[in-house]
Amino acid sequence: MDRNIKLEIEYDGSDFHGWQVQPGLRTVQGELERGVGTIVNHEVKLVGSGRTDVGVHALGQTANFHTQSGLDQEAMLRALNGVLPRDVLVKGVQEVEVGFNARFSAKSRIYRYRIFLGRTAILRRYVWEVLYQLDKEKMAEATRLICGKHDFSSFCVAESAKDDNTCRVKSSGWEPDGGELVFTIEADRFLHSMVRSLVGTLVEVGRGYRSVSDFGEILKAKDRTKAGPTAPGCGLYLLEVKY
Amino acid sequence: MDRNIKLEIEYDGSDFHGWQVQPGLRTVQGELERGVGTIVNHEVKLVGSGRTDVGVHALGQTANFHTQSGLDQEAMLRALNGVLPRDVLVKGVQEVEVGFNARFSAKSRIYRYRIFLGRTAILRRYVWEVLYQLDKEKMAEATRLICGKHDFSSFCVAESAKDDNTCRVKSSGWEPDGGELVFTIEADRFLHSMVRSLVGTLVEVGRGYRSVSDFGEILKAKDRTKAGPTAPGCGLYLLEVKY
Repeated sequence: MDRNIKLEIEYDGSDFHGWQVQPGLRTVQGELERGVGTIVNHEVKLVGSGRTDVGVHALGQTANFHTQSGLDQEAMLRALNGVLPRDVLVKGVQEVEVGFNARFSAKSRIYRYRIFLGRTAILRRYVWEVLYQLDKEKMAEATRLICGKHDFSSFCVAESAKDDNTCRVKSSGWEPDGGELVFTIEADRFLHSMVRSLVGTLVEVGRGYRSVSDFGEILKAKDRTKAGPTAPGCGLYLLEVKY
Repeated sequence: MDRNIKLEIEYDGSDFHGWQVQPGLRTVQGELERGVGTIVNHEVKLVGSGRTDVGVHALGQTANFHTQSGLDQEAMLRALNGVLPRDVLVKGVQEVEVGFNARFSAKSRIYRYRIFLGRTAILRRYVWEVLYQLDKEKMAEATRLICGKHDFSSFCVAESAKDDNTCRVKSSGWEPDGGELVFTIEADRFLHSMVRSLVGTLVEVGRGYRSVSDFGEILKAKDRTKAGPTAPGCGLYLLEVKY
């Protein structure tokens, strides 16, 4: 009997060349396919909800695979965490209907971006250290402009631009958390580097390098060359994928 | 003119063989002495408030050194952070009276120990992952027994036991923090591995392996062989040194 298994996965992206399998490089998908293959005893092709770049973390990445293995979910969870390296953790194993696809069945994704206001030795792999004064009011004002349905071409790495660059942002905003400033965004889909490009440009608004209306113009321009720098991968977390 | 400079230091202990200089090994003191030496242009001997073991972190370690350098404090801070590796951060530079000694002038030290209740990929280097149910009431009850002046020989690594193993615990207790259970303890002095040995034994009380009165007996026994296992270094933080 063909079973379809969904995994919920946490990983520390620091020592990975991103999610997607690449020959000769250590990737999250590669480690997981090897781990799953070991416990189900056949080669497995894992479908992830989406790729994450070098250094990007996940608290709730999802993926699915098909197998004939008879292992129950609890045993699979324990066996998997027994063979996986310590920077990948399977948090949930769930048998799903055969048509479920971790990528195409997703209704929305939630990302988080952590900015540390100052320098930190301990969190350096898990935040972006920003040493400038940031005007949080202005950043909040600019962030409100991205809510709803927009063409996000300006915030997409050019080479990977698609025909349709429209995303529907359900919610987004900034919250202080101790010495951090944390950005959370939920949308039906994300373009490549979209969150990091938004954060990099919003920080320029916060520093006063660009105005809120500049930010609005960038969004309307649909031109990647207009946006600010891409924020580093280490501050980004794939938080949740909703189905 | 001989100046005495006090440093406040944060470090990620993950990639260090502890604080103290050891030939051929990467240590925090070694990196700092090299960094300070570079900016003051002469060899420097750093006096730390105390050693930390392999994997142990610090948010507020202190150290001092003597120099004839005329560099002001702000310039020294920036220059130091410019030459130090990213897992050591100087948070403060302060000129102090010539008799100040980071170790012997200290009035008390505060340590923190972070237990993560479950498994975590992202925090694995910064917490101790405990998978058992813990009885927080019982742990709190046992913890109250260590308040005040006691001989802590039972919670000291035997080889480093001293003539006088008395420490005065000013405060200690556990607090939940999200999915974590966090132990904080302030005392005038600490024996080698004392916090980790206390935490390891208190977790055995929490698991029900030992009773609260067992814990009291261990404290009274003044015998290291009676205590529980030593909790791993990666959960421990030197938080602050008070003068």
